[in-house]
Order: sequence, then structure tokens, then C-alpha cells
Amino acid sequence: MTITAAYYTGNKSFSIETVEPQSPGPGEVQIDVAYCGICGTDLHVYLGHMDQRIGNHRVIGHEMSGTIAALGDGVTGLEIGDPVVVRPLDHCGVCPACRRGHQHICQKLKFLGLDTDGAFQGKWTVPAHTIHSLPEGMSLQHASMIEPLAVACHDVRRGRVRPGEDVLVIGGGPIGILVAMVAQQKGGKVTVSEVNDFRLDMAAKLGMKTVNPKETDVTAEVNAATGDKGADVIFEVSGTQAGVDLMSDVAATRGRIVMVAIHAQKPTIDMFQFFWREIELFGARVYEPEDYDEAIRLLASGQVDAPAIVTDVRPLTDIGDAFAELAGNPKSMKTLLQCGPAAGAS
Amino acid sequence: MTITAAYYTGNKSFSIETVEPQSPGPGEVQIDVAYCGICGTDLHVYLGHMDQRIGNHRVIGHEMSGTIAALGDGVTGLEIGDPVVVRPLDHCGVCPACRRGHQHICQKLKFLGLDTDGAFQGKWTVPAHTIHSLPEGMSLQHASMIEPLAVACHDVRRGRVRPGEDVLVIGGGPIGILVAMVAQQKGGKVTVSEVNDFRLDMAAKLGMKTVNPKETDVTAEVNAATGDKGADVIFEVSGTQAGVDLMSDVAATRGRIVMVAIHAQKPTIDMFQFFWREIELFGARVYEPEDYDEAIRLLASGQVDAPAIVTDVRPLTDIGDAFAELAGNPKSMKTLLQCGPAAGAS
Repeated sequence: MTITAAYYTGNKSFSIETVEPQSPGPGEVQIDVAYCGICGTDLHVYLGHMDQRIGNHRVIGHEMSGTIAALGDGVTGLEIGDPVVVRPLDHCGVCPACRRGHQHICQKLKFLGLDTDGAFQGKWTVPAHTIHSLPEGMSLQHASMIEPLAVACHDVRRGRVRPGEDVLVIGGGPIGILVAMVAQQKGGKVTVSEVNDFRLDMAAKLGMKTVNPKETDVTAEVNAATGDKGADVIFEVSGTQAGVDLMSDVAATRGRIVMVAIHAQKPTIDMFQFFWREIELFGARVYEPEDYDEAIRLLASGQVDAPAIVTDVRPLTDIGDAFAELAGNPKSMKTLLQCGPAAGAS
Repeated sequence: MTITAAYYTGNKSFSIETVEPQSPGPGEVQIDVAYCGICGTDLHVYLGHMDQRIGNHRVIGHEMSGTIAALGDGVTGLEIGDPVVVRPLDHCGVCPACRRGHQHICQKLKFLGLDTDGAFQGKWTVPAHTIHSLPEGMSLQHASMIEPLAVACHDVRRGRVRPGEDVLVIGGGPIGILVAMVAQQKGGKVTVSEVNDFRLDMAAKLGMKTVNPKETDVTAEVNAATGDKGADVIFEVSGTQAGVDLMSDVAATRGRIVMVAIHAQKPTIDMFQFFWREIELFGARVYEPEDYDEAIRLLASGQVDAPAIVTDVRPLTDIGDAFAELAGNPKSMKTLLQCGPAAGAS
């Protein structure tokens, strides 16, 4: 039985092809993909920023959900038909990072869907150790939000947000909003700083305090709201010089900054303020297994309404248009693509 | 009885004056100053970098030791003649930082010897809450190293150095060497990166592994020595762009960087590496009371030979020459000035 697969072919293009699915080898699992969301990293691929790593014939996509289609030799504890998501990280197990317990930032990490073919196809074959089973009754459409929600859970865990703390999220795209949701769930008093009106409106509709740094002095506003204390925890999700300037300006003494964004250019940073106020900064990348467990728990219990940011659901064959629309001035937040026949089941 | 006091008068100059000592008011203590070391901050004052804060008639100096000369009303638990050092921080007690327990980085902190007159004089009057008593038998000359040693104790505590960890200290001046000593005492495997030959020699004589970044690729050397892991803890004490470039380059995954240096210029920093390897950065400024307790304990027990970096001891009246020599290409590390008659007692 053949499947439909969407290949990134360079130059902002995808090729929709009918191919034989990859059979699961020993220790692997084949999944009927239901939904797969478009990640910011996928957009970077689309825009050509990662061609050297990706090549020009690669199935991307990793924010997925599905059901198990076939099991390779030696795979136990899973059954055909089980609803699952994939934690798309394949670590080497022997590098210094792996040996120190940081497999998620393995020094030779393979990211499934970038360094291998991904989930924008009908069936996806992955190592069994990457599978997380879903609780009964969870919508597969909702479950495709688990991967980005796990990113947010990891970021908030790195920032150790405590009840009552003042939190500023710099950048209100999908990850920023999910970080804000999780930080709120942990009891933080969250403000989102964002310049895009559509995203500001969505954050406000989700009950978040918002501020537009083009119209307001964010540091002055946070200081006024906190008795000149500043923000206890700051998430830099903007990837901009302005975001980096704001993060140290607005931080409380011993404030904690979580560096979520990918800064391709080296920003200038006010190290004097880090010294003066003993500010702390924590890099945060992807997730660990416990972050997936937490994301599944928060979604299943309804404590975090991650699916609220889904603004578009389209068939896989629309992938080219879907990317083109997101790459413009986005009036959408999260777009999901329906990847296979199982999609109808949800 | 009059005393001798050395006033910084601007423009790389000191004026030696004979003045009436300040009597201790309620809650204050007057100290016969024995020794006072010259700190890097004092050098900044001398070079005119801090004139706006300091003015042009100020007794500076805070790395001191001495004995209690007089007690103000209401001071208990101390006696005339007690050997003491001063933790030269006077906090407001009401700002957000103070209320959160971070009095040492009070948002309105007064640093004694900068924002008030300091210890380059025969008698110094300070708030009693800044006093730490010395154990019996400790040399007052040695005790004048407690203040910079407490800086190092604070920095190493911020970096949470654990036995067997690979530590890189970037910058081998007095604070860098003391940080290296304390990190070694905590069980760290310490390398000091420094460009000044005199300081490299001193570090080597103290048994430290050294590297000159002008001659050696420090990251390559650390990676070779650690099986491509990198440094677990990095202390940035150089205050240079090169130091900042090195700190993120050489860090292990989840490596911890302690920002000790004062970066008057904003450096460019490789935030991508902070994200990619989940590097952590901790600002570190001055000390808390427990750091003074630790410094006194390490000095009294001989576990850290801080006095080994003292290269010059001179009378207070030599203050102008002493600063001029340190401001050139230093062939000295730590210079102490004998400030009063009590100096002879040690």
C-alpha cells in the first residue's frame, strides 16, 4: 500500500509524492500519522535557512499524532492501533552529554524530521524509544499540540516558575503563548510582550495580560506593576536584539531569564546588569521525557488549553499554500496538516 | 588624637591629610585599621572612571583588617581590641531586593569606601552590622585578604563547583587566582587562562594549570583534556570580548558560567550556543555574610593560601606610588597598605 508524502525540495517548494512507506526495522515502530503541525523550525527549512543540513529532498514535520500501524522486531509494550505521539530525538548514548544524563542535547543528536524524514506523510517509521502513548479518549487533533506544549513545559521547568511570581514572555508566537499558558498554570502572573496585533489579540482573548513594546515602555510598566522589583522570570522567545535588550532591563535582582529563541546573529548583551543584579540565564532546548509526560497530563486534564491556538487545519496536499501563508505576515498561529486516513478517526 | 587619612582627589592623585577621626555614633564601631589592600575597583577610582559616584575628596579602600578602637551606643557582642574585618555593604532593608533576602545586592546599596569614606586611614567608623570577628591568632596582614577571598567564595558558590568538575578561570588577576584557589579547594580541576606572563608564572607557582590564549586555542585544549566534554564551570573574570567569546565556546552542555567581571561595554554573546547546549549563566557580585564566614574559615584553617598573592606591603603614605605601579603593566598581584599604628602589632 502506498502513501502520500510531502518532500521539501528547496526554494520554498514541496513535492507531493506517492511512495512506499518505510517498513519498521528491529526496534522501530511504524505510525499512521493523523495530524502534524507546522513548527517555526519547519518555516526556517521552508525559507531555505537550513538547506545545508536538510538537503533538497526531505520529508519534514515532527509536531504529530497518530496510531501505531506496525511494530518491528523486539518492540514490546506497544500494540497496533495504540494512539501515540513521538518525541523526535534520537541520541547517540555515548557522547559526554549523553553520559551526563542530557540525552536531549546529545552532542550528536539526530532530530527526526530534520536529520531524518519526518511526519508530513501518511506513515512514519521511528525508533520505539521515541514513542509516548496517549491516554484513552484524547483527540488526535489535540494531541498534535503535545510536542510544542512539551517545549513550553521544558522552558517553564528551566525557569522554575513559582506561584505568585511575575513572568514576562517576550514574543507571542505559538511557543511564546504556550510558555505563557504553562507559566500561568504554575501560578505565575504572566504578561506577554508582542508586536503583532493578531497575536496580541489572541493572547488577550486567552486571558493574558499583553503589552506592545512599540507603544509602551515595557520595563517601566513591569516596574510600576511590581513596586520596582521587576520580572522574576523572563522568557526570551523573540530572537531579536530588542528582546535581548528588554530581558536584562526588566529582570528583578536574581531574576531568571530562559533563552528559548534561536539567535542566529550574536546579540550585544548588557553583561553589567547580569553582574549588578546577579541575573541568571538558562538556555533551553527541546524537551526531556518528563516534559512530554507533563504536556500529556496538562492536555488530558484540560489544565492547559493548547489547542486554542490552532487557527487552521488543512489537508497535507495544501502544504505549499499553508507554509506560504505562515511565512507572510501571519494572521494565523498554529496550522495543522491532516496527513493520513487515520485523521478522519478523530 | 588625630589620624592620617589618604583622600582620593581626582586625576590619579591622593592627598595625605591629618584629620580628626570620626567618632562612632549609635550602632557604629570605630576600628584601628591595620592593613588595607588595593582592589581593582580602587584602581578604577584612581583612573577616574568613577568620579561621578566618588567625587574628588573621598577616602577609598575596603579590603581591610584591624582592631576595635571604640564602640557606639547600643553595640553589643563586641569589645575594644577585638580583631575584625568589615563586610563593606550597607543595605536599605526595604527595597524589593532586600525584602527577598538579597541584601548584598540591595537596589540602594551603599558600598563603604566608595559611597562613604573607606579604610585608607588610621581609624574607620562603620555600622556594627558590617563587622566579622576574627579567630584568635590570625595575622592581621593575612586577614586583609578576607574581603577579596569572600568575593571568590561567593563566585564559587554561585557556580556550585563539585569535586572532579573541570573548571576554567578566564583572567588570572587577584580575584581570578583566588577563585581558582577556592574552586580547587572544592575539588575542581582548575585551569587559569591569562595573557600576562607575571600572572601566569604566579598561577603556575601556586600549582595551577595555566594556558595563554594568545599562544594556545583554549577550547581545543580543554576539549582534548575532557574527551570533548568542555568545561563544567567557567568564571569570566577578564572583562574582555575575548573572554566572553571563550566562555560560551568552551562550556560543556549544561555548563555553568559565572559572570564575575564588570563589562562596562556591552559584549556580543553567542546566544545560539546558550540555547544549543543549555548553557547557564549566573551574575555574581560581592558577597553574603556566609561567604565571609567561609573565607575566614578557609584562611584560618590554611585550606586556601590567599596571602600567597600578596606581592607588596607599603606604608599608607606610599599610596600614590602604589596605585601608579599597579595601573601600569602590573608585575605585582596584591598590594597592601599599612594604615595605622596597629599594623605593627601583627
